[in-house]
Amino acid sequence: MSNIKTFGIIGGDKRQLFLAQSLLSDGYHIILAGFGKLREQGFDNLSSVEAAILYSDAIILPLPSVRADKSVNAPLAARSIFFSAGELEVMRQKPVFAAMRDRLIRAYPALDGAEVFDYAARDDFAVLNAVPTAEGAVEVAMREYEGTVFGSRTLVTGFGRIGKILAKMLKALGSDVTVCARKPSDFAYIEALGYHAKNTASLSLVHGYDIVFNTVPALIFDETLLKNTDEATLLIDLASLPGGVDFEAARKLGVDAHRALSLPGKCAPKSAGEIIKKTVFSIIEEVNR
Amino acid sequence: MSNIKTFGIIGGDKRQLFLAQSLLSDGYHIILAGFGKLREQGFDNLSSVEAAILYSDAIILPLPSVRADKSVNAPLAARSIFFSAGELEVMRQKPVFAAMRDRLIRAYPALDGAEVFDYAARDDFAVLNAVPTAEGAVEVAMREYEGTVFGSRTLVTGFGRIGKILAKMLKALGSDVTVCARKPSDFAYIEALGYHAKNTASLSLVHGYDIVFNTVPALIFDETLLKNTDEATLLIDLASLPGGVDFEAARKLGVDAHRALSLPGKCAPKSAGEIIKKTVFSIIEEVNR
Amino acid sequence: MSNIKTFGIIGGDKRQLFLAQSLLSDGYHIILAGFGKLREQGFDNLSSVEAAILYSDAIILPLPSVRADKSVNAPLAARSIFFSAGELEVMRQKPVFAAMRDRLIRAYPALDGAEVFDYAARDDFAVLNAVPTAEGAVEVAMREYEGTVFGSRTLVTGFGRIGKILAKMLKALGSDVTVCARKPSDFAYIEALGYHAKNTASLSLVHGYDIVFNTVPALIFDETLLKNTDEATLLIDLASLPGGVDFEAARKLGVDAHRALSLPGKCAPKSAGEIIKKTVFSIIEEVNR
Amino acid sequence: MSNIKTFGIIGGDKRQLFLAQSLLSDGYHIILAGFGKLREQGFDNLSSVEAAILYSDAIILPLPSVRADKSVNAPLAARSIFFSAGELEVMRQKPVFAAMRDRLIRAYPALDGAEVFDYAARDDFAVLNAVPTAEGAVEVAMREYEGTVFGSRTLVTGFGRIGKILAKMLKALGSDVTVCARKPSDFAYIEALGYHAKNTASLSLVHGYDIVFNTVPALIFDETLLKNTDEATLLIDLASLPGGVDFEAARKLGVDAHRALSLPGKCAPKSAGEIIKKTVFSIIEEVNR
Repeated sequence: MSNIKTFGIIGGDKRQLFLAQSLLSDGYHIILAGFGKLREQGFDNLSSVEAAILYSDAIILPLPSVRADKSVNAPLAARSIFFSAGELEVMRQKPVFAAMRDRLIRAYPALDGAEVFDYAARDDFAVLNAVPTAEGAVEVAMREYEGTVFGSRTLVTGFGRIGKILAKMLKALGSDVTVCARKPSDFAYIEALGYHAKNTASLSLVHGYDIVFNTVPALIFDETLLKNTDEATLLIDLASLPGGVDFEAARKLGVDAHRALSLPGKCAPKSAGEIIKKTVFSIIEEVNR
Repeated sequence: MSNIKTFGIIGGDKRQLFLAQSLLSDGYHIILAGFGKLREQGFDNLSSVEAAILYSDAIILPLPSVRADKSVNAPLAARSIFFSAGELEVMRQKPVFAAMRDRLIRAYPALDGAEVFDYAARDDFAVLNAVPTAEGAVEVAMREYEGTVFGSRTLVTGFGRIGKILAKMLKALGSDVTVCARKPSDFAYIEALGYHAKNTASLSLVHGYDIVFNTVPALIFDETLLKNTDEATLLIDLASLPGGVDFEAARKLGVDAHRALSLPGKCAPKSAGEIIKKTVFSIIEEVNR
Repeated sequence: MSNIKTFGIIGGDKRQLFLAQSLLSDGYHIILAGFGKLREQGFDNLSSVEAAILYSDAIILPLPSVRADKSVNAPLAARSIFFSAGELEVMRQKPVFAAMRDRLIRAYPALDGAEVFDYAARDDFAVLNAVPTAEGAVEVAMREYEGTVFGSRTLVTGFGRIGKILAKMLKALGSDVTVCARKPSDFAYIEALGYHAKNTASLSLVHGYDIVFNTVPALIFDETLLKNTDEATLLIDLASLPGGVDFEAARKLGVDAHRALSLPGKCAPKSAGEIIKKTVFSIIEEVNR
Repeated sequence: MSNIKTFGIIGGDKRQLFLAQSLLSDGYHIILAGFGKLREQGFDNLSSVEAAILYSDAIILPLPSVRADKSVNAPLAARSIFFSAGELEVMRQKPVFAAMRDRLIRAYPALDGAEVFDYAARDDFAVLNAVPTAEGAVEVAMREYEGTVFGSRTLVTGFGRIGKILAKMLKALGSDVTVCARKPSDFAYIEALGYHAKNTASLSLVHGYDIVFNTVPALIFDETLLKNTDEATLLIDLASLPGGVDFEAARKLGVDAHRALSLPGKCAPKSAGEIIKKTVFSIIEEVNR
């Protein structure tokens, strides 16, 4: 994989456009396909999918790479994109960087055995994306909360990737931060980093917090807990679907709850594109080692 | 002024409502007038202006206190509020906390010589409001900028109250911060606090910054400087009107410029209300000393 | 273990004295034994080892608990302390909190099967101790380095407990921090937290750093690497013995290298005592659950 | 002053040596005089005072520049240095950067009217030196206090240059910081930066603080206040002589008080040397403008 000069970027949203721009400014050639809708906006330099596959040294697919109908996830394309047998034959000859590899191969079994790397499945990708996610969460909090984050009392449930970065950001902004976790070593880290620690297991009352961020992908905020949550509390759920909040119950109980999903792509596509690039290059480096 | 038990709060927006709520939870009695529009929203406990003047120990007017037509600045009132001669007679007997005292007295000369305290003219009020202003600016940046503030390169022009707090916040979020100022001692503080210093006088090129925040109330970003500003730069003008950016030129040159004014009231009315309260009590304490 | 009112604290250094003081101010009774040397300093309230064992509800031994000669590690005791068969018989009836449990039981097999809890073997204990360790390392750096940590360029090798806390502290003080690690997810965290990441595997030159902190318990700084280390660099080795630096080679090559061990006990015995207390109570809570 | 290529550096301590080294690595020629004691340590390249005056384009004197006996402040010189009439005649022809200009001119009236710039009297010099001063104070605290600064409760009296930087540093290290000041706008800044504010005027009891740093050059900690200071409190006086603490009373009352003076030169001569250089160049730039 040592000599990639040209990347074919097929499908995706703004993140892939920023990725393309960043690769360009690094000196790579880019063949961009699946962004036909941008043509009307005076966007030039768009190629066919075929050309992107044929004339590139490596191909980057979006996040996720394919939809349920097997079409490439290309919201900015003029029409649906499906890979032909001929295209797949060529793709088998070169590295393909994709997200949700299994789904891609289920859709296109011809790619089985090919060099398909799942950049989105990697731990480093997830960690790096915790930054735009946490910042997106802060943006939601700043928009929805009627006070300042500075001087607020916040609760973050979960001390995984997002919890770690989000707690740091909130404290840096001057919030008094409490973090819920389950393990003694997490409690120790939480305190050593200057937050208050709370045991998720004993979370039966959410009192005295201005803003609560849930990062745990489990129904933490069920009807029972929501009944014991201050009405004035702003609740932001960052957990991937089905999420950690019973929104129906929240609505009934008058708790102001917000679902905030896919924040990197929505709030910071430029950084999200950079993260894809960085991860792709980490893969290349590891393979070449 | 030692024995204030009841505050009359007349006119204003959400800030005054949060102020009222905060005073209430401190144990004070509140007589609220000039919020008639809220009645339809089920808001109770609203009084007449007359009652708020008559039965209170001190009166708090909004920010600013009166409009050009001499009416109280009361956007949530059902109708315009003008003080009558009788009301003014009573107001002369008790402390009145107002913003833009001069304008108030020009509108109501009967208050001349009365105990009218301008809370908004105080330095501490302005410093405290730098926090919601800076946070509002960060919110605008997070919303408008397509990357994360973390890892961004930002420029803050001006090292007054807002510049000081904003630079701290941006750095805390992981931005690489440069601050423009004019005095050697400011350069020294800027470096001692971990930012890069730049001389405003020699600012002829704005290159390599993702986001620029102007806090200087002078036309810094005129057409000439905007011509030497990266097109990709997001420009946020926090300076009070007429502001520090030639928006017309920015539009022509394709520079993405945003005016962000009155941020405390818009982004964080709760904190803004708390700051009014804190300043009013500082005044009371000083007078009683 | 639910009803502990009196702790017997036997042996140890200042850490155990601060532990005793802290437990006292929490309302516990303390029986202190093995501090006879303090008697000359006017220290009262010292008991015999026998009393401490007999009249307590739980016993806390120091860190480490016993020496190679089976005596209790009691540098402040007037004479060596060995547990008698009778004492051991009583100790078997109550919880004993010790450090290096295996060594203790090897020395006193009668304690096998008893409720001996090793507080020092726990992950949370190690994490909490990373704070006084990192702060001790900063103190050494401040003392030995002729510039300020603010504005310095520092390298931390290893991103375990100490590396995590130390990097945070150095950055908070205004240093430009690089962290060496080996895993892609660690690189991602390092960057997401605002440090520069470097691969330990490719560390063949240590150039441009004012201070280097080694936390890796392996010979990273061997003669070869030391030959490629700037002479002006201050090197502080925090790794437990045999350590990560070839000190003999460093001396020959003129690299200013310092070994910094057992920092919590030396630099912050008060915090170290608090951490023992906190860990003992975590154990009690877990057992009682 | 536009064409300085060679600096004559006469007298001083390690700070001037680091200054010389830094100027050298910037490409300047350096003539070093008044460091004769270093010759035994193998230090070469030492000149006579006469040569340093004669062959340089500008002269830098130490901090302070002259002693009470009119000799140059040169603790590392082999013998006392006094400027001769001939030397002064040459010095009048070139810029001289000195500290405590008045004392220098009183000692050598021939320099009156010459281009003598007092770098140490400048505000930016003082601000920049607040960093090594504050860091030196933190070092003293870490060495003397038996707990960690992290988690400690600290009080800083005074919110001038040192108070500002020191409070920031302590908070960054995880201390809960209170700052004493006198002006409402200072209280506002103190709170807006995340510290607790206290009025110096009402400081009659110092209770609940682990470490107190005095930066106010007035006898704040007199016998009366010391009587109302917790015995366990560590007191560090940073105020220039006569200082802000009655040390005699402290000793009697058992309060652990430390005087910490001239910290930049003692704790961080390298940074102190850089600050002299930076200030000298700021002066040159201003003169040339």
